[in-house]
Amino acid sequence: MVNETQHTCSASSSSKSDCGSSSGSESSKDSSRCSTPVLDADRHERLREKMRRRQDSGDKWFSLEFFPPRTANAAVNLISRFDRMGAGGPLFIDVTWHPAGDPGSDKETSSMIIANTAVNYCGLETILHMTCCNQTKDDITGHLQKAKRLGLKNIMALRGDPAGEEWEEEVDGFNYAVDLVKHIRNEFDDYFDICVAGYPKGHPEAESYEADLRHLKEKVFAGADFIITQLFFRAETFLRFMKDCQAIGITCPIIPGIFPIQGYHSLRQLVKLSKLEVPQEIKDVIEPIKDNDAAIRNYGVELAVSMCRELLDSGMVHGLHFYTLNREVATTEVLKRLGIWKEDPRRPLPWAVSAHPKRRVEDVRPIFWASRPKSYIYRTQEWDDFPNGRWGNSSSPAFGELKDYYLFYLKSKSPREELLKMWGEELTGEESVFEVFTCYITGEPNKNGHKVTCMPWNDDPLATETNLLKEQLEKVNRRGILTINSQPNINGKPSTDPIVGWGPSGGYVFQKAYLEFFTSSEIVTALLKVLKKYELRVNYHIVNVKGQNITNAPDLQPNAVTWGIFPGREIIQPTVVDPVSFLSWKDEAFALWIEQWAKLYEEESPSRMIIQYIHDNYYLVNLVDNDFPLENCLWQVVDDTFELLN
Amino acid sequence: MVNETQHTCSASSSSKSDCGSSSGSESSKDSSRCSTPVLDADRHERLREKMRRRQDSGDKWFSLEFFPPRTANAAVNLISRFDRMGAGGPLFIDVTWHPAGDPGSDKETSSMIIANTAVNYCGLETILHMTCCNQTKDDITGHLQKAKRLGLKNIMALRGDPAGEEWEEEVDGFNYAVDLVKHIRNEFDDYFDICVAGYPKGHPEAESYEADLRHLKEKVFAGADFIITQLFFRAETFLRFMKDCQAIGITCPIIPGIFPIQGYHSLRQLVKLSKLEVPQEIKDVIEPIKDNDAAIRNYGVELAVSMCRELLDSGMVHGLHFYTLNREVATTEVLKRLGIWKEDPRRPLPWAVSAHPKRRVEDVRPIFWASRPKSYIYRTQEWDDFPNGRWGNSSSPAFGELKDYYLFYLKSKSPREELLKMWGEELTGEESVFEVFTCYITGEPNKNGHKVTCMPWNDDPLATETNLLKEQLEKVNRRGILTINSQPNINGKPSTDPIVGWGPSGGYVFQKAYLEFFTSSEIVTALLKVLKKYELRVNYHIVNVKGQNITNAPDLQPNAVTWGIFPGREIIQPTVVDPVSFLSWKDEAFALWIEQWAKLYEEESPSRMIIQYIHDNYYLVNLVDNDFPLENCLWQVVDDTFELLN
Repeated sequence: MVNETQHTCSASSSSKSDCGSSSGSESSKDSSRCSTPVLDADRHERLREKMRRRQDSGDKWFSLEFFPPRTANAAVNLISRFDRMGAGGPLFIDVTWHPAGDPGSDKETSSMIIANTAVNYCGLETILHMTCCNQTKDDITGHLQKAKRLGLKNIMALRGDPAGEEWEEEVDGFNYAVDLVKHIRNEFDDYFDICVAGYPKGHPEAESYEADLRHLKEKVFAGADFIITQLFFRAETFLRFMKDCQAIGITCPIIPGIFPIQGYHSLRQLVKLSKLEVPQEIKDVIEPIKDNDAAIRNYGVELAVSMCRELLDSGMVHGLHFYTLNREVATTEVLKRLGIWKEDPRRPLPWAVSAHPKRRVEDVRPIFWASRPKSYIYRTQEWDDFPNGRWGNSSSPAFGELKDYYLFYLKSKSPREELLKMWGEELTGEESVFEVFTCYITGEPNKNGHKVTCMPWNDDPLATETNLLKEQLEKVNRRGILTINSQPNINGKPSTDPIVGWGPSGGYVFQKAYLEFFTSSEIVTALLKVLKKYELRVNYHIVNVKGQNITNAPDLQPNAVTWGIFPGREIIQPTVVDPVSFLSWKDEAFALWIEQWAKLYEEESPSRMIIQYIHDNYYLVNLVDNDFPLENCLWQVVDDTFELLN
Repeated sequence: MVNETQHTCSASSSSKSDCGSSSGSESSKDSSRCSTPVLDADRHERLREKMRRRQDSGDKWFSLEFFPPRTANAAVNLISRFDRMGAGGPLFIDVTWHPAGDPGSDKETSSMIIANTAVNYCGLETILHMTCCNQTKDDITGHLQKAKRLGLKNIMALRGDPAGEEWEEEVDGFNYAVDLVKHIRNEFDDYFDICVAGYPKGHPEAESYEADLRHLKEKVFAGADFIITQLFFRAETFLRFMKDCQAIGITCPIIPGIFPIQGYHSLRQLVKLSKLEVPQEIKDVIEPIKDNDAAIRNYGVELAVSMCRELLDSGMVHGLHFYTLNREVATTEVLKRLGIWKEDPRRPLPWAVSAHPKRRVEDVRPIFWASRPKSYIYRTQEWDDFPNGRWGNSSSPAFGELKDYYLFYLKSKSPREELLKMWGEELTGEESVFEVFTCYITGEPNKNGHKVTCMPWNDDPLATETNLLKEQLEKVNRRGILTINSQPNINGKPSTDPIVGWGPSGGYVFQKAYLEFFTSSEIVTALLKVLKKYELRVNYHIVNVKGQNITNAPDLQPNAVTWGIFPGREIIQPTVVDPVSFLSWKDEAFALWIEQWAKLYEEESPSRMIIQYIHDNYYLVNLVDNDFPLENCLWQVVDDTFELLN
């Protein structure tokens, strides 16, 4: 809604968001659906229901507005920002529509794809804006169909800015937002939640404030579910507007749009575009400090906090909508000071959920993608059922191929130069690779003084839970057991445990110890001898890049390695070691050596050849200690292996 | 195959085996299927595969032949015998076909219904015999279709005895067993496993031993999967026969039919019917002791054991088929002495499984029917899916009505006089009912000196597991908390635990404490006050006969109360407290007061009115303590309740 400067989209690599998977939606009688954990109503309710529930419970909320970025790199950054700001608990985010930026296309910077990423890969309830003027019905319908297909459930229906200076109504065309609202309801029935814009001072082009209120009422009566307002500078502006709306019979939620002033220029530009008047008292403060960005931002935060407090204290406002201008600091600061930024360490499930409606019932995933949830979601986007009957005794996993490593939501947040500093400008042998793994585990700088904060298999620093295993992990990585995934055994900790807890309170969570690593064939040979001693206790799967697969699992059944017991519920087992999907993960895990690491170096360079050698010759191993109530025996297995080798 | 005396079936109450359920096979997206526990291959393999697997593993096995009883009471006894002899681990049982006894009918003594009961209610792999002579194709097809519908998967295809003395071939009719084998394969493809009869001495009506072997080969080549032989008296008879079969290309399993001599008269009769010659050395032993039943049985056991040893030692025999004549002692003795009677205390699941092929995937049941598994199977026989999508958020349970309390496999094993001795010839008040419950729990005789070994809700003495709670149960029953179902909490005992263990070895089993009882409205009022203190910990459902239902369960989700964690598998949660099916159980639990207890007394008698009063006014209560790792708090709940009342 804030009309930030329009930009043209540079024709960067096009990202395909809804293809890449090999097969479809067969279902199997042997499907291994577990229980039905309705863990949080948030996964099942539509946005308007969530709003109503928050209003009923008196729980204040906020939402965040973003615009699509100009470049692919900016898109990568925006997605990271979604993850970070998502942690504060917005009820939803919304993504603006840029007619000039090919907004419905598959470009990685399009409104459609950014919204798709937010909902599917960041798990955020998302509203996609859509404008209708100067567009055909077919165009609009096409956009809406695509949005629905991608899992978007909410549309902000706007008129948009007419192309020319002098705007003329088109007969049978989309002339007003209300036309779009009607069209959505006609064509898509009740599928979408629809939001419309309200103007606390009246729309600049409206005949009068009263006339504009009547237009708003038309939009609501045509089927809109709630209203978000244009920004304003005084609480009383909004409160009067709200009362006026109610007076003419508008009863749906009206959410005030909050604009924390973040800089002199952005304010000026905004005011120009939105044709709003900045009150004199604000101008008086800002003009003298217009070159001091920090001072203006502090003032903006102060102003926003006091206005928001006034709104909330009125008792008429339950949620606040923030125009972030894609920036984090000011909005986060306001939210924290208001006490509605809620970093809730509790997780509904141990992995990052997606907000696509068809993934609502998803309650179990293979452990392999624990650090790459976006890749997992990408590779299973064609599934109609989760886990899609693929597990159990099925031998035909339908994971999509992962060839699109360049996709902005899958690639590393760090640029090439950063990665080279972390992983080595020049490798001298397998040992220098061991060192990189070890530094990632310990958090110590490498020999060039750079901390290793990510790996091809983990784009983030070590998880708190993995920290529990740090000492042992360090020891084994030094010796060439290159760990990429692990979890400790847990024998019934409270579900509220800050590190390993998940799910509703009052429950108990459990885990089997898990260890996954790459290692040489020499170590594998010794390991296999050692594993004979642990035959009944440890399940293993060992595979190389060619797919040679060694396992003691009796059949192709999944092994549950994380589960929870909750009051009044069925058992929930959200993580499994699934032998079938392990072979799909194997392809991805091996490819990451090449795609993310080897390709940092020149072809034929010694560094590249070292990584290529590891890729071609190492094995990917996973081990599960089934005896979760006893002390984890996997470290003993590794110790025994090294002892055998010496 | 043993031609025991034919009998006509007295027209007793007809039992309907495939009706009585109210509704069908809708399925729900919210189905609460849990994991896929392929706990034992036995539940998934067909009989011929089980045979092959046992042969490959060198694991010797046995099977048991029974004939249909004459009377309804004898049927009740036979079903108990199935349960007892089933405990020894037969690979299958078979039920003979009695053309004169209306064998395909719905009578409770028909071959069809006895076989149906064995497979569905006793969980036994079962072969139904079927004879074909003097029957039309349509009759035969009708019988086979019915057998299939009832879940029978194996047919013993026989000719049967012609009606007249002089037998003539019918053109286009069924003249030989081979015609029936061909018909089954033509009409039912590979659905049934087919067994045929072999005659170690040649069929008495065959032209020659060699001609009979050729007939046998024809039957096998027409599609029979294995052969069971007529009885014989010397191991060498069978071994020669087996070699001769192999010599002409019969390669399927051939199972020797063993007849432990159990009495002088039964032997004579059998010999007459089967036209076999008893060897002189046996006659020499038997004639002198012909009036001493025990001596003959001992000799018969001795003889059978030594012949079976010889057969097994030959290395050619993997399984032994016993003609039991519906008696237990001799056969059980032979099996125990051979060491192949295997009472395996390990259970694949904590409840008694059914062998109907469509129940193969059944892996979860409501706890309510724990002591009435046959009733549960009966009431869910129309389900196509288990748990049939009824659980979870569904509010329309499709349990069949249980109006047929008289059905022989549902009614008490004890006759009316026995029940009156146990439950009181005359009740003097609610307290005398409390006393019956208390005596059942303690195992002490009642005031008339009779032990109470069953109750309307439990047809067997107290389970070993319930014994763990005996002291507390006694205390509360004395005071009018009339318990009918309970389990202690278990926090990870080995799956091999002799009392609470189930499932494959190497696993851990868990339980939430559970208590279910009838009690007065006065106690319920106090209980509800007490339960407020336990709101987060204890889930309860309290309902009276009219269906007034009080619960603190937030929605209609099942609460898992028994689950197991096993090496290399998903979590298994075989028992749940399901709020929806509780309402179906409620009807049955209240009805049992009247059907099994009140109706023992004259109408309008004081005793009957006491039971009727309880039925009309008491509540059925179930309590789950969700905090399974802590000490069971349910006893404290009850104590607090009594304290509040005082």
